[in-house]
Amino acid sequence: MMTEKKRRRQEMLVMAVRKEPFLTDEALAKKLAVSVQTVRLDRTELGIPELRARVRTLAENTREKVRAIPHTEVVGDLLSLELGVRGTSALRVTDDLLFADSEIARGTALFSQANSLALAIIDAPVAMTGVANVKYKTPIHKGETVIAHAEIVKVRGNKIFVWVKTYREDKEVFRAKFIVVSLHK
Amino acid sequence: MMTEKKRRRQEMLVMAVRKEPFLTDEALAKKLAVSVQTVRLDRTELGIPELRARVRTLAENTREKVRAIPHTEVVGDLLSLELGVRGTSALRVTDDLLFADSEIARGTALFSQANSLALAIIDAPVAMTGVANVKYKTPIHKGETVIAHAEIVKVRGNKIFVWVKTYREDKEVFRAKFIVVSLHK
Repeated sequence: MMTEKKRRRQEMLVMAVRKEPFLTDEALAKKLAVSVQTVRLDRTELGIPELRARVRTLAENTREKVRAIPHTEVVGDLLSLELGVRGTSALRVTDDLLFADSEIARGTALFSQANSLALAIIDAPVAMTGVANVKYKTPIHKGETVIAHAEIVKVRGNKIFVWVKTYREDKEVFRAKFIVVSLHK
Repeated sequence: MMTEKKRRRQEMLVMAVRKEPFLTDEALAKKLAVSVQTVRLDRTELGIPELRARVRTLAENTREKVRAIPHTEVVGDLLSLELGVRGTSALRVTDDLLFADSEIARGTALFSQANSLALAIIDAPVAMTGVANVKYKTPIHKGETVIAHAEIVKVRGNKIFVWVKTYREDKEVFRAKFIVVSLHK
């Protein structure tokens, strides 16, 4: 029989995953103040897929919405997209994104994720980057997953101002401002 | 017997290639006001290799000097390098650098060329990008070659300010300002 404590714990897990579907088991464990092992067992009992599967499902449902660039151009997995408003993508730092002989992601990887996301949220048949101002705050390491949030903050004629903030867990690791030019093919 | 006119023309070709070794035959022809065919014949007679071979030779002699990143990380061919001062690289827009279903280079390609060059000219065992401000001025197409020139404009402690300007023929197509942080491993 399920204890009351366990029932409550599982309820909190369900809510946590619903609110932040891109947290790792480690981050969920920290958030709920339980062990990683407990999170895994609870996930299995509740039928909540592991992080990578959650990301994959979301990405498949979202990518067809992209207009301004081919969806294959989006670097990382597109997780959410409101065309003309905002979008989110996840990038896992695999070996091909590392500086040779290091465990650190190339700066270009974070730029590409942010830049392609900024283009993906544009509601126009074609869009191109005009200006980019970016800031790297923390190095990202092999195996880590970063989540980029892009938002359109201003539109002036065919110039669209997009801000992107990229997080590892709850920490902002990178930010970018883009001026994107939308074109009618 | 060689005419005086031809002798002078070939002399000018030698000087033009020495001054700007990365000009295409088309650009050389325009510069010297002769046909592309004439440039090719003169190059053959004079034993001046074609552009791609000139680039390759320069790149092989230069890449061993890079300190702050592995030389394999430099995007494009490194053509010249004065560590701690300036450097130049050439990037030819091949199919893998194009936006899917287009003939236009990804913005990320020009960023990667500039960013890796900015890091390559740093005279330190390790360097990382802190800030980047970039401006795209003209789309670059399949088959075109762009030349990036990077220069250190200021040093403040371990912060190094690098400006990069990227040209296609004589026209500036992209520019970037980087603040790079040098580290002692």
